[in-house]
Amino acid sequence: MTAFVGVGDMVEWISRRGAETIMTEMADTIEADFRRWESFDKSERVANHTPFGVIELMPISDPDVYAFKYVNGHPFNPGRGYQTVTAFGVLADVHNGYPVFLAEMTMLTALRTAATSAMVARRLARPDSSTMAMIGAGSQAEFQALAFRGVLGVSRLRIYDVDPAASAKFVRNLAPRGFDITVCASASEAAAGADIVTTCTADKAVAQVLTDADVAPGMHINTIGGDCPGKTELDPRILDRGPVFVEYTPQTRVEGEIQNVAADFPVTEFWQVLNGMAAGRTSPEQVTIFDSVGFAIEDFSALRHLRADLVGTGLDTEIDLVAAPEDPKDLFGFATSPVPVA
Amino acid sequence: MTAFVGVGDMVEWISRRGAETIMTEMADTIEADFRRWESFDKSERVANHTPFGVIELMPISDPDVYAFKYVNGHPFNPGRGYQTVTAFGVLADVHNGYPVFLAEMTMLTALRTAATSAMVARRLARPDSSTMAMIGAGSQAEFQALAFRGVLGVSRLRIYDVDPAASAKFVRNLAPRGFDITVCASASEAAAGADIVTTCTADKAVAQVLTDADVAPGMHINTIGGDCPGKTELDPRILDRGPVFVEYTPQTRVEGEIQNVAADFPVTEFWQVLNGMAAGRTSPEQVTIFDSVGFAIEDFSALRHLRADLVGTGLDTEIDLVAAPEDPKDLFGFATSPVPVA
Repeated sequence: MTAFVGVGDMVEWISRRGAETIMTEMADTIEADFRRWESFDKSERVANHTPFGVIELMPISDPDVYAFKYVNGHPFNPGRGYQTVTAFGVLADVHNGYPVFLAEMTMLTALRTAATSAMVARRLARPDSSTMAMIGAGSQAEFQALAFRGVLGVSRLRIYDVDPAASAKFVRNLAPRGFDITVCASASEAAAGADIVTTCTADKAVAQVLTDADVAPGMHINTIGGDCPGKTELDPRILDRGPVFVEYTPQTRVEGEIQNVAADFPVTEFWQVLNGMAAGRTSPEQVTIFDSVGFAIEDFSALRHLRADLVGTGLDTEIDLVAAPEDPKDLFGFATSPVPVA
Repeated sequence: MTAFVGVGDMVEWISRRGAETIMTEMADTIEADFRRWESFDKSERVANHTPFGVIELMPISDPDVYAFKYVNGHPFNPGRGYQTVTAFGVLADVHNGYPVFLAEMTMLTALRTAATSAMVARRLARPDSSTMAMIGAGSQAEFQALAFRGVLGVSRLRIYDVDPAASAKFVRNLAPRGFDITVCASASEAAAGADIVTTCTADKAVAQVLTDADVAPGMHINTIGGDCPGKTELDPRILDRGPVFVEYTPQTRVEGEIQNVAADFPVTEFWQVLNGMAAGRTSPEQVTIFDSVGFAIEDFSALRHLRADLVGTGLDTEIDLVAAPEDPKDLFGFATSPVPVA
């Protein structure tokens, strides 16, 4: 049998443990996996692009565990009552190839994306950072805010969204949780005085939600929404303001902010910073940029974190996804057995 | 909610409809999809190779439907009580990217592989074919035999397997179903006098389970087990005996029998034969070779065939794989709602 964590189970898990606590702990799991970067069999994700959006598969494995995520990105979905992104994922045993764990990942992806942002900012943002600007207040926004508070202690937020209803939703969800939130009339106003700027917009366009003039010395820029060919968020001049850090270079060249600059634009893979093989921030005045697109290791980490955290909770159920004939060569006898398998 | 067809449901479906009937009908569904080959967004499968075996993802889409299959191949599994191949697959709506149908595919892959072989042989084997040799009597063997009888009327079988227990299992499963089966002492003996030769072995090696001398004029060769880099079944000289037909050339160059010959070895994609764009068999004396590796369209066809056939049967259940917040931008509110979603 394969363990299954459905939507209801996931909501219950988040409710019991708390999103902020989950992400604070998950940041450590993701960091531990980034540190052993070289033990993973990595590849770029496989994307099927359509006029409506994209559907992607993101596989990855270490010597013991295989994981993949199914994820779509459909920017026009919210206008039709659907979410932009939905996802689910699987863990499998490398030794026999059997899938052992299947989980909804729409919520888990939101958690791991924010946990990754905070895990990176913990090394790259100035240690005295206390204020974050957030450009975009959609599905991912609250998760980012909670992860940054849990991991870095940032609790002053300056937000901007083109859709006032999205900002109102953000305030409604987070004001009761002790954040000091200022809703701003523009991205520039939000960025003014911030130590960290998170851009997290969904529009599939070569956008400039943050301009070069908005960027002040010492800022850490956490750019989340540029994650697809033709979908970016930053004025490209910002990339010249300071070192650019990425997850997996071959994928970011195609999907990240750096798709708008030269193919040999210098970047640093963040796992090298964690392992002391490359420099992170080198001065308080430096601008640092995390060009995040989302990488399969983060899903691997999130799934294994979830699986370990659920042990003993009874939250997962079982589904009969894998046929298990007594004689493994007699699949036909199994498939045509007179009594259906339980 | 996402429809789910588990192992028990699949066994019940096969039991109700009959494997031979299912594959005979499924061959037409696969043929219909091969005929509209050019309407699919195709890519090679993504494989994670490990010392134990391989885990692959096979995505494909047409303008309305996306499908992918997860499948492993672990040749040493049967010796440890596991199956060589397990699989599951998903259909999704292209317009919003939501997964709508999840099914076990260990059995469904066995059905679609044999249905594809028979669908191809219907065009390439001599119309008067009555005897099939089968080299390899493992998990796939009975499915091949039933599909060839259902689609081509072939009911005389000459089988050989290195493992006598596998041959005994094959006879036990199929003799009661009206086949005339001769168990042979070697592959050469099995091939002697056969109109069609199906090679279906699991060893991950550059093997020669069929030699050039075993091949007689007029034969159709259906080679199934050469489907991975370093995993082939035929004496390469056989490929010079007659035209070689493939599913999707870029994938077969890497995984099929033709990996053992020149990179520009001429092949014909079978969909072109169906559409009258390329010749199939041109004389009764000709040897024809189907270098099958298994392609994503076959899984797409099998899943949509299954889904359509299950309508009204009540065999599928539902799982809550996709979070559906009332406000699609308020994933956080949904994820932290006090009452778990049903």
